[in-house]
Amino acid sequence: MIIASSSSVYGSGYLEYLLPVLKKHFKNVKTLVFIPYARPSGISYDDYTALVTKAFLNININIKVKGIHEFTNPAEAILNAEGLFTGGGNTFELVNQLYKNAVLVPLKEAINKGVPYLGTSAGSNICGVNMMNTNDMPIVYPPSFVTLNLIPFNINAHYIEPVLNSKHMGETRETRIKEFHVFHTIPVLGLKEGSWLEVINNTIVLKGNHSAKLFQKNKEVTVIENETEICL
Amino acid sequence: MIIASSSSVYGSGYLEYLLPVLKKHFKNVKTLVFIPYARPSGISYDDYTALVTKAFLNININIKVKGIHEFTNPAEAILNAEGLFTGGGNTFELVNQLYKNAVLVPLKEAINKGVPYLGTSAGSNICGVNMMNTNDMPIVYPPSFVTLNLIPFNINAHYIEPVLNSKHMGETRETRIKEFHVFHTIPVLGLKEGSWLEVINNTIVLKGNHSAKLFQKNKEVTVIENETEICL
Repeated sequence: MIIASSSSVYGSGYLEYLLPVLKKHFKNVKTLVFIPYARPSGISYDDYTALVTKAFLNININIKVKGIHEFTNPAEAILNAEGLFTGGGNTFELVNQLYKNAVLVPLKEAINKGVPYLGTSAGSNICGVNMMNTNDMPIVYPPSFVTLNLIPFNINAHYIEPVLNSKHMGETRETRIKEFHVFHTIPVLGLKEGSWLEVINNTIVLKGNHSAKLFQKNKEVTVIENETEICL
Repeated sequence: MIIASSSSVYGSGYLEYLLPVLKKHFKNVKTLVFIPYARPSGISYDDYTALVTKAFLNININIKVKGIHEFTNPAEAILNAEGLFTGGGNTFELVNQLYKNAVLVPLKEAINKGVPYLGTSAGSNICGVNMMNTNDMPIVYPPSFVTLNLIPFNINAHYIEPVLNSKHMGETRETRIKEFHVFHTIPVLGLKEGSWLEVINNTIVLKGNHSAKLFQKNKEVTVIENETEICL
């Protein structure tokens, strides 16, 4: 699995910063099944799938992209996929559709048997134990917040440090995660834009140019340096 | 009802900017029932209630504050209250506890019969049709997102304009609200810190020094000037 904080970084095209990683990750993949359920800015499944197709061409990755909505049996499509990619957008709507289309279990099964998976933003949040550390607005009510539980912690994507001297009184990201730990013991990884996790079997390594922050209940926050294995 | 974006503004104490308004709003109130369920930073109900008691003394409001958790029958406490205040914190946990303690209906009933209500931040979000425009992290799973529906639109508290020249790739507040309108027709009012709504019977007036932004499905965003009645 490649679990990326964001699909793009400032000043660079969609997925562009991940090009060398994706070339390697999807080297044996000819057709990729794309999950467009998160619908960033509310775009349609077709438009989102077309955007990904174009992006892959732009970064010279020669893979045919097929949206999961193009299959009559989405669960079967996932189980038969050579490669899988869940794009970013709204995590509530993504999880809602994963439940409605009954593809959460097949997705977990496919990834567990070794199908290469890419998640960005919302598509990364769902790799955690649950989606309770998303930054997204709850624009729909999913049947549950429980997600794939493929890594032993939750992801906070687009992690950002508090803005110095801000006059805004809304909670910082760190405060929000600490509030989560009043109710739960699940660790949370704050993954900055431009960072990703490379997960091979049970080994999880932080990649990209940034450190990450690991929040654990009743513990000091830990800074994880890049190129480090994350052991809990 | 006083529906405030935030409990405080930058550089001023808790509730301080609202002092003249609260003096008038609660002028006949000797004992106020406080709802501390939103637990900002995870503080206890007792600590939160003590904080509000102290804040009222600091701003020379002589009202006895009693936390709803101090009553054996919270629904009855609300129905018998002279005044009501729901504080800010996490909207998911607030709504979760409103359902668990079965106080959502009594709360609506009390406000409808004229008991003066103050809501700040999460306590304001719950006055809308549902809580789907909160900025909070979904740290608990409430039984529903449906709230008091006492005004014909939703509140986005702590509303903030996009940061110019930001390198952060996460969605702006405006993008998130527009995503909401892909799925719903409920209007959303972006209420800036330092703004509040004064609701008397069916008249809703924007107060404070700032304008607000009204988002409606398939319409241009409307700027509402302060001291203006909001008519939908």
